[in-house]
Amino acid sequence: PLRGQHDERSLVFADLTREEYLQIQQFMLKEKKLQISTRQTTEPSQNFLFLIDLSLPKKAAALAYLDRNGTKPVREATVVVFYGSSSTIVEYVVGPLPNPTYMRDVTKERYQMHLPIRKRLVTIGEYSLMFKFFEEKVFSRLKKLLEESFGVGRGQSLNAFEQMPRGVQSGDRKTWVSFFRDMSGMYIHPVGFEVLLNHESANASQWSVEQLLYNGKYFSSVEELKREYDNGGVKKIVYKNFPDYGSLKPRTKPLQVGPQQFYAEGKRFSVQDNQVLYLDWSFAFGMSSLTGMRVFDVRFQQERIAYEISVQEAMSVYGSVTPGMILTKFLDSSIGIGRFAHELVRGVDCPYEATYVDTYRYIDVPVPVRFRNSICIFEHNMGQPLRRHFSDFFHNSFGGMANSALVFRTITAIGNYDYMWDFIFYQSGSLEAKVHATGYISSSYLVDGSLRYGHQVAENVLGNIHTHFINFKVDLDVSGVKNVFQTKDMEYVNVSLPWMPNRYAMVPQLVEKQLQTEQEAALRHDTKTPRYLHIASKKTNRWGHQHSYRLQVYSFAGDHLPESQAEERAMSWARYKVAITKHKDLEQTSSSLYNQNDIWSPAVDFSKFIEDNESIEDEDLVAWVTAGFLHIPHAEDIPNTVTVGNGGGVLLRPHNYFDEDPSVNSADAVYFDPG
Amino acid sequence: PLRGQHDERSLVFADLTREEYLQIQQFMLKEKKLQISTRQTTEPSQNFLFLIDLSLPKKAAALAYLDRNGTKPVREATVVVFYGSSSTIVEYVVGPLPNPTYMRDVTKERYQMHLPIRKRLVTIGEYSLMFKFFEEKVFSRLKKLLEESFGVGRGQSLNAFEQMPRGVQSGDRKTWVSFFRDMSGMYIHPVGFEVLLNHESANASQWSVEQLLYNGKYFSSVEELKREYDNGGVKKIVYKNFPDYGSLKPRTKPLQVGPQQFYAEGKRFSVQDNQVLYLDWSFAFGMSSLTGMRVFDVRFQQERIAYEISVQEAMSVYGSVTPGMILTKFLDSSIGIGRFAHELVRGVDCPYEATYVDTYRYIDVPVPVRFRNSICIFEHNMGQPLRRHFSDFFHNSFGGMANSALVFRTITAIGNYDYMWDFIFYQSGSLEAKVHATGYISSSYLVDGSLRYGHQVAENVLGNIHTHFINFKVDLDVSGVKNVFQTKDMEYVNVSLPWMPNRYAMVPQLVEKQLQTEQEAALRHDTKTPRYLHIASKKTNRWGHQHSYRLQVYSFAGDHLPESQAEERAMSWARYKVAITKHKDLEQTSSSLYNQNDIWSPAVDFSKFIEDNESIEDEDLVAWVTAGFLHIPHAEDIPNTVTVGNGGGVLLRPHNYFDEDPSVNSADAVYFDPG
Ligand SMILES: [Ca+2]
Ligand SMILES: [Ca+2]
Ligand SMILES: [Ca+2]
Ligand SMILES: [Ca+2]
Ligand SMILES: [Cu+2]
Ligand SMILES: [Cu+2]
Repeated sequence: PLRGQHDERSLVFADLTREEYLQIQQFMLKEKKLQISTRQTTEPSQNFLFLIDLSLPKKAAALAYLDRNGTKPVREATVVVFYGSSSTIVEYVVGPLPNPTYMRDVTKERYQMHLPIRKRLVTIGEYSLMFKFFEEKVFSRLKKLLEESFGVGRGQSLNAFEQMPRGVQSGDRKTWVSFFRDMSGMYIHPVGFEVLLNHESANASQWSVEQLLYNGKYFSSVEELKREYDNGGVKKIVYKNFPDYGSLKPRTKPLQVGPQQFYAEGKRFSVQDNQVLYLDWSFAFGMSSLTGMRVFDVRFQQERIAYEISVQEAMSVYGSVTPGMILTKFLDSSIGIGRFAHELVRGVDCPYEATYVDTYRYIDVPVPVRFRNSICIFEHNMGQPLRRHFSDFFHNSFGGMANSALVFRTITAIGNYDYMWDFIFYQSGSLEAKVHATGYISSSYLVDGSLRYGHQVAENVLGNIHTHFINFKVDLDVSGVKNVFQTKDMEYVNVSLPWMPNRYAMVPQLVEKQLQTEQEAALRHDTKTPRYLHIASKKTNRWGHQHSYRLQVYSFAGDHLPESQAEERAMSWARYKVAITKHKDLEQTSSSLYNQNDIWSPAVDFSKFIEDNESIEDEDLVAWVTAGFLHIPHAEDIPNTVTVGNGGGVLLRPHNYFDEDPSVNSADAVYFDPG
Repeated sequence: PLRGQHDERSLVFADLTREEYLQIQQFMLKEKKLQISTRQTTEPSQNFLFLIDLSLPKKAAALAYLDRNGTKPVREATVVVFYGSSSTIVEYVVGPLPNPTYMRDVTKERYQMHLPIRKRLVTIGEYSLMFKFFEEKVFSRLKKLLEESFGVGRGQSLNAFEQMPRGVQSGDRKTWVSFFRDMSGMYIHPVGFEVLLNHESANASQWSVEQLLYNGKYFSSVEELKREYDNGGVKKIVYKNFPDYGSLKPRTKPLQVGPQQFYAEGKRFSVQDNQVLYLDWSFAFGMSSLTGMRVFDVRFQQERIAYEISVQEAMSVYGSVTPGMILTKFLDSSIGIGRFAHELVRGVDCPYEATYVDTYRYIDVPVPVRFRNSICIFEHNMGQPLRRHFSDFFHNSFGGMANSALVFRTITAIGNYDYMWDFIFYQSGSLEAKVHATGYISSSYLVDGSLRYGHQVAENVLGNIHTHFINFKVDLDVSGVKNVFQTKDMEYVNVSLPWMPNRYAMVPQLVEKQLQTEQEAALRHDTKTPRYLHIASKKTNRWGHQHSYRLQVYSFAGDHLPESQAEERAMSWARYKVAITKHKDLEQTSSSLYNQNDIWSPAVDFSKFIEDNESIEDEDLVAWVTAGFLHIPHAEDIPNTVTVGNGGGVLLRPHNYFDEDPSVNSADAVYFDPG
């Protein structure tokens, strides 16, 4: 039996429906003078309707609607058009839904800059041209090499995997494309052939090959490589069959299924539209095509704890001696994280009995696409007590309860990697945001010097060292929006013993601080940080202590890219374990769709959020939390990285928010004594 | 269907049976001249058979037996006798079992010192005398105060909870005893009355009260307190009824049970005697009355990965302004961790369908005691994939498998706290040792100045700030006993780009080191530590990389007690996140039964293990891992601390140990493609 009732006000955070996508698409196409195309093969020189996604309501308007019976905020969409014809990108807000009447250019407002077209990602339209280019300008001229080295034409083919950023300075659109055997898990089948393609021009006929790498040697043109290859001026790679070590096909027949979980008395949670109710919890959810999974208006026992908790960015920096990966710095939200939330597999990705939800997206497509079962929601028995005590002194009794919690999950497969995103809601009022990595590592062909950058993981294959940094936005509202940022820690103090004052001892004391400005509260990875971090209210609990939620970060992050590097500002959020900012509607995300492809001049530089060093006392605060891990690939990453040990996240825990542990009220509690 | 077969050689690690305890007890009692008593009320001046526990075989002998068909090591027991008559403690090895013929005094061999009787813990015999003392010498003389202040005699009574260490220097046995309301969860019901009892003498008639604390004020005798109380010279505590906020009784009726796990096709593991088989895993297990849960001869795919993984010590240092807790430093293995492994509750402590195992112990008892269902073993579906990849570029396919793992668990309720101990065995060849804390916090009566030492958590109750430090012994044997200790990390190096040599970029490189001596490999908490720590072999995998297991420590530890403090050497293992020593049979544990009660002259000082700074290259290595967390109690610790977020441990992960992820062979793997 559910405790609460669904409330359709959650719909202010709902993703656009298929109908809404179509309404907006039609509205955009009606503006004939814009000459917008929706064809997936639209060329870079043309105008392409790239993205339609929900435009979030302003927080004040949403709160007025949710809390004070204010009017419902107008429902709007963000629309991104790549204007090849004028070499600019324009971001519009289109509304009101369901029958749009206006489009407003918000580019300048959102990014304080115009967006030149070079900041766009590579669309499917551009990829088609790139593949065509490789076919015509490279492969067709290197038939002998490709056949002898890689078996191309003898039943084998090569797939491309490209590295980012595309060059070394603003204006560059020069992509090192590495080639891989067309086998399952191609990412761990590099062949030793990489090509630097200059595709700066909107006109594909002006594209060119600037460099090639074959078996560790560089060539400045296809012709040069061909000539040297034919003349014996290069050490040849000789094709042979490779074992299918990237295959995920079971090698054993199922013998006996493992333990399964079931709801003996039915589900204890309910999903309606985009709202979930679970015991004391309720929240709204959505999936941004760019940043991914997010929840809003998270409440426990009716009280809002968080306005928004969302994935912001997944970033990786690689090391390599070969060009394909020597500069690689992936910023996934610039490709789209939520975009790659595909169907979840019952019994593997989530338990069989989970509730699965479809999502709809419009990104680099001609029509909105349905992603079946791309979110799962389930209650899970964690196989341990949430709390318990066994008493055998003075009293004999046992009290405790099992730890059953609600898991809200998507998994995004962005090329080689699969990130599993979990928000977990515990009966003790804690809430966790976690990510785990699995899928294939990125790899490169083993050449001289490779082993300084990782370990060999298969024949001629280097698993390249890299970092994983994940950014979460945590907009807690603790007993209202006016909050402060507190830290707590311990310190040994030499104190005199009260009953023998001549004797001293080092005794731990509590050290509490309240940080005052954004820059003070930007906690760098490489500094000693107080152990307890709290978003707190001036409101106090029954014992006079300030209501707070503590942020406990789980992270094994590697080193962040030095700030000396031009690329660093596009990922400046990763400088900090935790950074606290004053909430602004215009500081919606810590990264952007445009950060990857003009990484030297990022459309969003998180460090600017704190440059004005605003006061964070009694303000609406947002915590930006970074977790991650250093990944030194090893043989056991083949075929796939395992989730165990490869993750991070943040646990949000009530700390003097309640007067006692709220799980005392759980119906799951068990108690017995000898009576 | 099980893959392997049980092997009774695991019995060399088995705990003593009830019959064996009795055989040893009888053997000891036969030695009339020792005048040993087994009565639980044996007084401190008499000789008491305190402990019988398994004496582990020497490692070389055990390995010869397990691996090379050597003779079975003689089965022996450790026996501890408290000789009140001669003021010494003697530790014997008694054997051979089942029919003992010898007892050998091993005290000097094991501790390099004699053990004066002051190092003994307080036995039930001594507690009886203490309670009697309080009744006769304190309570009976303070009837009015106790009735008016605490309702004693009006249906209320007080319970004692004592603090350790017992004094400030070697020779002291002066215990501050704090009194608590006799309610469930007494530990969070302090009344504001504490008494310093001097019980140094083996003769209880010479015991005395040295100080008393009542409502924040000190008195040097019971008479003085009584006089001042009667004269109005003290601010009185006035008794009133207290709400039962420590109760674990459910406040709600069960409504609908949460998710349950079941074995649809039966258990995939088997427990026989003290051996567990689970898919590719096998191990032997045992429970030391002192140190707790442990496993031996841990193998994956027949190969031994660890010789021993065991709990060593659980330590806490408290802060307070009141004497009861101002000096408190608990060393649980000196009381006995395994000793308090009580019955596990089905459906709360472990899943209903777990396999439950009984243990037998002999510690401070007249006869061996059976602890029913005190270990549980179960396979758990972790509710997430162990690995997965969804492919939609070039190929469409899905491969993955659910993460089902075996959990081996005990929970020890040592007074107020319950520690949940888990060893988890994953199908990817990883093995995890974890601990979580739950149960009641320790608390003290709120007086002036208290709030520097924690937060108020109930009326007049301070939850005192404290640390949790847990030490694990991790004796990995990676491809044999000869191992080295390696570290790996990343470092940004400025390198010239091979295809444009005038351009430089900071690129992450792999930094590997092999540490050479014990002191180099003693990694302090307050220093920067390489991110990857490995126990490695000189043997290499298919790709030429050294076989290794990586230790990934999960810890939120507070500050360790400064080394300036005399008590620190008794817990010197806690200086280090990880310390590597050369294995020695005589360095079996990092702490001892005798560390708590003569903390200033510890029988085992871990730092001495590394004082000789031996070489750790190509030696049998042991890793001593410390995890923990700083605990600043808050209202939600009432009634019980929750497990979520309150734990730590170490994950042991294969790293180039295999040629690929061993879970590729799991029958749980799932794959499909469009065909
Ligand atoms: Ca700001
Ligand atoms: Ca906020
Ligand atoms: Ca040594
Ligand atoms: Ca070893
Ligand atoms: Cu990785
Ligand atoms: Cu604690």
